Amino acid sequence: MKPAYKKEDFPVSKVRRFLEPGPIVLISSKWKNKTNIMTLGWQTVMEFSPSLVGCMISGGNYSFELIKNSKECVINIPTADMIDQIIDIGTNSGAHTDKFQKFGLTPEASAKVGAPSIKECYANFECKVVEAALVDTYNFFIMEVVEARVAASPEFPQTVHYRGDGIFMISGEHISFPDRIKLL
Amino acid sequence: MKPAYKKEDFPVSKVRRFLEPGPIVLISSKWKNKTNIMTLGWQTVMEFSPSLVGCMISGGNYSFELIKNSKECVINIPTADMIDQIIDIGTNSGAHTDKFQKFGLTPEASAKVGAPSIKECYANFECKVVEAALVDTYNFFIMEVVEARVAASPEFPQTVHYRGDGIFMISGEHISFPDRIKLL
Repeated sequence: MKPAYKKEDFPVSKVRRFLEPGPIVLISSKWKNKTNIMTLGWQTVMEFSPSLVGCMISGGNYSFELIKNSKECVINIPTADMIDQIIDIGTNSGAHTDKFQKFGLTPEASAKVGAPSIKECYANFECKVVEAALVDTYNFFIMEVVEARVAASPEFPQTVHYRGDGIFMISGEHISFPDRIKLL
Repeated sequence: MKPAYKKEDFPVSKVRRFLEPGPIVLISSKWKNKTNIMTLGWQTVMEFSPSLVGCMISGGNYSFELIKNSKECVINIPTADMIDQIIDIGTNSGAHTDKFQKFGLTPEASAKVGAPSIKECYANFECKVVEAALVDTYNFFIMEVVEARVAASPEFPQTVHYRGDGIFMISGEHISFPDRIKLL
């Protein structure tokens, strides 16, 4: 078992640092006594402050109804060492399965939403749905990140980025141009 | 000067292969006699067929009005060797500049939209705006990809993925699990 990430509170206005590169995320949700986790690659940052993230969650997912009804979820960032769990979560339905138990993940109480956070993930972004106008037509939820926790190290997680057909790109090296890009 | 990519027609239902990993893209647009290019990292795939992509385009960008008025654009995928142009395009306004000329990029006629495609990019996805309900409130456009061209090689482009503060992640290695993931 890998060592647990030691997480710290993180400014919600800066979650783009981990979401904008486009990693596969795990969405945890809870409605009444049902909890679930799904794999998602169809999300985008939409604003810094309020901290907004748009998520296209297909109605075929069991999580869709949990999120639609509870108006909450947690966006968790898994790292490449969790690839087996990422695939298993994405290819099994939670309708009759407790995915936390089945795939060896630990639900932790969140600070501001009822949905649990996933302990094993690099980051946990607690979200509330703030705009549902395109949910019926496009399954598109706009969430506000209301609380964020991020691992103290490493500085950047090694994430996986999906291409379809079972192919994942793994995040690579970083290049930095602090003097050329101001406040962006 | 690098060799030009040899591009081929590509199925619009499969553009997620290049967009879902979350690369920085260059959006080219045209309205009346004005053409522009902007750098964008806030986009997500939303559907396979029709092929939908959601883009959050800040109203502060000169491109916003061009896209809002023309209801068209091209999503171009630049590769890591174009990092200087990516930064320059993202840090200069097109209000008084021809960015194609200033940054050494070549506009090519698109097949189905008036906006030009960028010749030097790995892929060109021609788009029409199909849903503008969240444009006034969230600057969020839903586009349909109506025509796609992708370089014949390499199989996957080396893309850049933005974290803010001048820091880019470069796409890394690939891992593949064709037998574990069916039709996803």
